[in-house]
Amino acid sequence: MKYSFKNDYSEGAHPQILKALTDTNFQQQGGYGLDDYSLNAERLILEKIKNPISKVHFVSGGTQANLIVISAFLRPHESVVSASTGHIFTNESGAIEATGHKVHGVETEDGKLRPENIQKVIDVHQNKPHQVKQKMVYISNSTEIGTIYCKKELQELYHYCQERDLILFMDGARLGHALTAETNDLTMEDLAKYTDAFYLGGTKNGALIGEAIVINNENLQEEFGFHLKQKGAMLAKGRILGVQFQELLKDNLYFDLADHANKQAMKIKKAFRDKGCDFLSETFTNQIFPILSQSQIEKLSENFDFYVWKKIDDEKAAIRLITSWATNDDVVDYFAKEIAGI
Amino acid sequence: MKYSFKNDYSEGAHPQILKALTDTNFQQQGGYGLDDYSLNAERLILEKIKNPISKVHFVSGGTQANLIVISAFLRPHESVVSASTGHIFTNESGAIEATGHKVHGVETEDGKLRPENIQKVIDVHQNKPHQVKQKMVYISNSTEIGTIYCKKELQELYHYCQERDLILFMDGARLGHALTAETNDLTMEDLAKYTDAFYLGGTKNGALIGEAIVINNENLQEEFGFHLKQKGAMLAKGRILGVQFQELLKDNLYFDLADHANKQAMKIKKAFRDKGCDFLSETFTNQIFPILSQSQIEKLSENFDFYVWKKIDDEKAAIRLITSWATNDDVVDYFAKEIAGI
Amino acid sequence: MKYSFKNDYSEGAHPQILKALTDTNFQQQGGYGLDDYSLNAERLILEKIKNPISKVHFVSGGTQANLIVISAFLRPHESVVSASTGHIFTNESGAIEATGHKVHGVETEDGKLRPENIQKVIDVHQNKPHQVKQKMVYISNSTEIGTIYCKKELQELYHYCQERDLILFMDGARLGHALTAETNDLTMEDLAKYTDAFYLGGTKNGALIGEAIVINNENLQEEFGFHLKQKGAMLAKGRILGVQFQELLKDNLYFDLADHANKQAMKIKKAFRDKGCDFLSETFTNQIFPILSQSQIEKLSENFDFYVWKKIDDEKAAIRLITSWATNDDVVDYFAKEIAGI
Amino acid sequence: MKYSFKNDYSEGAHPQILKALTDTNFQQQGGYGLDDYSLNAERLILEKIKNPISKVHFVSGGTQANLIVISAFLRPHESVVSASTGHIFTNESGAIEATGHKVHGVETEDGKLRPENIQKVIDVHQNKPHQVKQKMVYISNSTEIGTIYCKKELQELYHYCQERDLILFMDGARLGHALTAETNDLTMEDLAKYTDAFYLGGTKNGALIGEAIVINNENLQEEFGFHLKQKGAMLAKGRILGVQFQELLKDNLYFDLADHANKQAMKIKKAFRDKGCDFLSETFTNQIFPILSQSQIEKLSENFDFYVWKKIDDEKAAIRLITSWATNDDVVDYFAKEIAGI
Repeated sequence: MKYSFKNDYSEGAHPQILKALTDTNFQQQGGYGLDDYSLNAERLILEKIKNPISKVHFVSGGTQANLIVISAFLRPHESVVSASTGHIFTNESGAIEATGHKVHGVETEDGKLRPENIQKVIDVHQNKPHQVKQKMVYISNSTEIGTIYCKKELQELYHYCQERDLILFMDGARLGHALTAETNDLTMEDLAKYTDAFYLGGTKNGALIGEAIVINNENLQEEFGFHLKQKGAMLAKGRILGVQFQELLKDNLYFDLADHANKQAMKIKKAFRDKGCDFLSETFTNQIFPILSQSQIEKLSENFDFYVWKKIDDEKAAIRLITSWATNDDVVDYFAKEIAGI
Repeated sequence: MKYSFKNDYSEGAHPQILKALTDTNFQQQGGYGLDDYSLNAERLILEKIKNPISKVHFVSGGTQANLIVISAFLRPHESVVSASTGHIFTNESGAIEATGHKVHGVETEDGKLRPENIQKVIDVHQNKPHQVKQKMVYISNSTEIGTIYCKKELQELYHYCQERDLILFMDGARLGHALTAETNDLTMEDLAKYTDAFYLGGTKNGALIGEAIVINNENLQEEFGFHLKQKGAMLAKGRILGVQFQELLKDNLYFDLADHANKQAMKIKKAFRDKGCDFLSETFTNQIFPILSQSQIEKLSENFDFYVWKKIDDEKAAIRLITSWATNDDVVDYFAKEIAGI
Repeated sequence: MKYSFKNDYSEGAHPQILKALTDTNFQQQGGYGLDDYSLNAERLILEKIKNPISKVHFVSGGTQANLIVISAFLRPHESVVSASTGHIFTNESGAIEATGHKVHGVETEDGKLRPENIQKVIDVHQNKPHQVKQKMVYISNSTEIGTIYCKKELQELYHYCQERDLILFMDGARLGHALTAETNDLTMEDLAKYTDAFYLGGTKNGALIGEAIVINNENLQEEFGFHLKQKGAMLAKGRILGVQFQELLKDNLYFDLADHANKQAMKIKKAFRDKGCDFLSETFTNQIFPILSQSQIEKLSENFDFYVWKKIDDEKAAIRLITSWATNDDVVDYFAKEIAGI
Repeated sequence: MKYSFKNDYSEGAHPQILKALTDTNFQQQGGYGLDDYSLNAERLILEKIKNPISKVHFVSGGTQANLIVISAFLRPHESVVSASTGHIFTNESGAIEATGHKVHGVETEDGKLRPENIQKVIDVHQNKPHQVKQKMVYISNSTEIGTIYCKKELQELYHYCQERDLILFMDGARLGHALTAETNDLTMEDLAKYTDAFYLGGTKNGALIGEAIVINNENLQEEFGFHLKQKGAMLAKGRILGVQFQELLKDNLYFDLADHANKQAMKIKKAFRDKGCDFLSETFTNQIFPILSQSQIEKLSENFDFYVWKKIDDEKAAIRLITSWATNDDVVDYFAKEIAGI
């Protein structure tokens, strides 16, 4: 059996989470999010973002979070701007369009949107009402290619959006990894200040399932529960989302797990760097994209699973390696040795 | 703390399920349903229904199952016929309509659809193409009011649907309870023979989350995965659905749990009957609807939680009591004593 | 060739309208509603309703008007309440549901909604957010069965809606016929006062095509053009809608034509009454529903076309007869003679 | 009053069409497309394309035709590939997405799609079912920038689509202009052979309103009327579409009008060429895009209206000029003189 670096959801949940589910198992609780654990988990999030007026809703996965947030916030004639690498643009089987909204995909070098990218889309959509109206900006942090937004970048985006009456929404499927990257300067508080809404991903950071949608903008909070129900996202046993996020957030587990994943990735990155490899992009989160020759890829493939991400030329390709909370030292050491030997 | 008979999802999961999740936790598996557990759980279901060509897809909840199945099977101008008590007609916040389809709600006495009910809807929709085209029949078993379909009824419905090119879909959120009711004569095999699709509910029968959609009609199986993904139902850790259904189905746990719940309900029913109470409807599953006076309701409410379901007259109302896999003998005995005392 | 009383759109347009189209034909004009005629027609409507802040949009037909208004005004989780005879509930092939919204159909005796009808729907949808939220009331005037709202009824409905934050929308496909019925006491001004939006039907009252949507509620006016465009309703030559409504409204043609149709219907009604016939409902607009024996129906069918509307018993049925601006005295006299002879 | 070259829908209809509407005005006809004129117009189209099994449906405008065809043909998870200049991608206010489908916009030089453009989209969407499935190819002829497809190009596209089970749909809002361009080698018969569906635009070629959708692929014909009705496109007086297309097609009026528009454009093109101007693209239809200096643009703007289409550099821009059936010799001569003088 090869060890897989294909993604950060190859294992179940962190043992503390399973234990918490077991410990609370026989407590009778209200259904559909009206359980004590969900309420407590919401409170913990509000404390961490230091914003008592935000509202928190737990859903089971990222595509679900994206489609509900976007369809709840937009009117029928409004569209959303995304990087062309954005999950909603390319990896959700048309989920956003299925709710009736156009997604504009913008080419970027590093998976990150900047005001000028968005402005270009708006500039070519001035023939109202014949062209769709841009109303939301969707960003991912960390991005689908492992990069992260720094504080200044997020502030600039938010101010740009504020001036143009655009909603700024951050997909945080790997938000823990972004916030614990060694190059990061964003805080949880910043997310409450500089986005209208974001979500805190659990699935890729040690939970069985679960993303915590945080709506900061009060105008967007109203009647959100209807949208959760209508899209099939309201779990009868919402408690299992509450219990997990309570466990992840009551101390620092959420960030410890992401930090662990990042550190393992950085060790692997160093091993490739020591070997003289280049990278498709410079990342400091749990995704790395070393460029290898075909023979090197074949050699590594003998004992490890990963995606070949992008062909560089006839000889070389970038591979994608993802680490997680479950990637232990032994496997990293073993992998580093293999790398040294290619 | 009052004991709650409000629903069958007040607790977490059956301990065997939690144990199975723990035991498999560190096995690396493919994501999005491509794990060994899901494949095995599908195999177990196909064995039980004795139909190797059916396809199984696991999703997290009932509304999600309903909206995906219906929107995947219907073309834009097609509608679905339901009892007016049907979950899709009244309790899903417009989930089906949000995918573009009309739901016709038909008044029934017992929550069960019969051919003549459906024919009446079709009869008043003959002005084509000005009126929507009926293409699917949605039934629940057990129904939202606890009743069940017998074999003859299901056969008649299916033959009716076959003759008129209608798709027959069974919502099985409480299918376990239906199949283990003392008055039941349907088998798992029958479901594969006499429906185009159905689902096997886990959430209300001991799982943390999970419903197993079974598509029997080959013409409806194609490309179903796209619909799961597009509606946000494809869990990265699909393994947690697979592990649970594997555990529920590898022996007989699924049916044992439902049978337990039914038996507890029947004991409570007997207690009310001994007291001389009438019932809103005669049910043999885990939902019972005794009719009580206001003072009796108040008395029982002191130590127990339940819904007051329907006002009968100025003095009396029917209450709804739901038992589950977790309803133990002690609480039932205690409750029976309280009933005797009202 | 039989003369048809099947509907009020069997002929083309009133000759004045064709003449106006011809007279203006070579004037170059802006496209998509930005022509002088449309602007002028809007001004004429605002004058007649004495409400300068209303906004007017012209579309080609009634189903189009209904689906655009409803989808533009509602958020995804909101529904609309209609009489079960309402056009949107039964005769638009699921057009409203196709935009994502549930339509509640309420049984009524006379096709008219009253506050108590609506309240009953709301009363059984209190389980938020599991049930859809009622946000709009849809009424037709005249109704699909020829009846009309009096001023008091409309006022009561509007006040009810105002108190409950419901939008009141009137389908006016046959509004001219309603406002010119001998029993009518509503004025154009009342429509601006006591509805949030309504439309003035042209197609069934002498125009080639065209309905004028009037939005009185300022909160609902914003960015409506986007919805027209997105639903394919914005005609490149919007001028043809403007020219027609200008012609219909610059003097009193719109009301003269409807009054003519009503008067012809009343003459026919008298002929049936003189013959001793009963009617399915008492109407004073251009639709009448006399109850005839099978042999009487067959006799009339020899020279006239009409719909057999509703079976009364084994011997009798109600037929539907519709008159229009084009129904002339000769044909009515001839028909009256035939009636006298059955 | 300046003369407008802004578009080909600035005037009403060709006088023969108005006359035909007037001549047929008092003939009673069935509603909703069941009139003699529509049936006859369908027959005329089938004769011209020499394909008796095609089906024809008349709608009022191009965006409406596009959204109905696309939503009727695609299942929820399927998408459509268009040039990025395609009307559906950029000029319909999200109409296609509002029906639930993603539109992929592909950059092209001349507004025309080729197999390699489509293949590139398919190549990056192989991660099924996480990515949307491409099922339709949308092309416009003439394109939004005036270019046309030659026979060989259309054949290659169609064969490519056939091999990959893709539906080929041609937007023919300006199909008449394409088929009468001096460089054209496509026939009406070719359209029936090499597309699954196309439409014949009336609005931009002398009709008041109207596009004739022609569905060649039998598998796509079924129950199309429901979609027309559901999207609000079925006109009560469908006769006005039938009468117009009957008049346009009974002799050769449709092609004569387009030919006239093209010839007027070519005269203007020659005037610019004689003046030494370049063009944004080489077109032989009724749209031309000469590149002028700012002062030349200002000079021409004194007496003529047109769009400034695209900035070329700080000094120069391309303007768009559109001629129509109504552009007469006098105005062209006068304009040519003005051009000579700039």
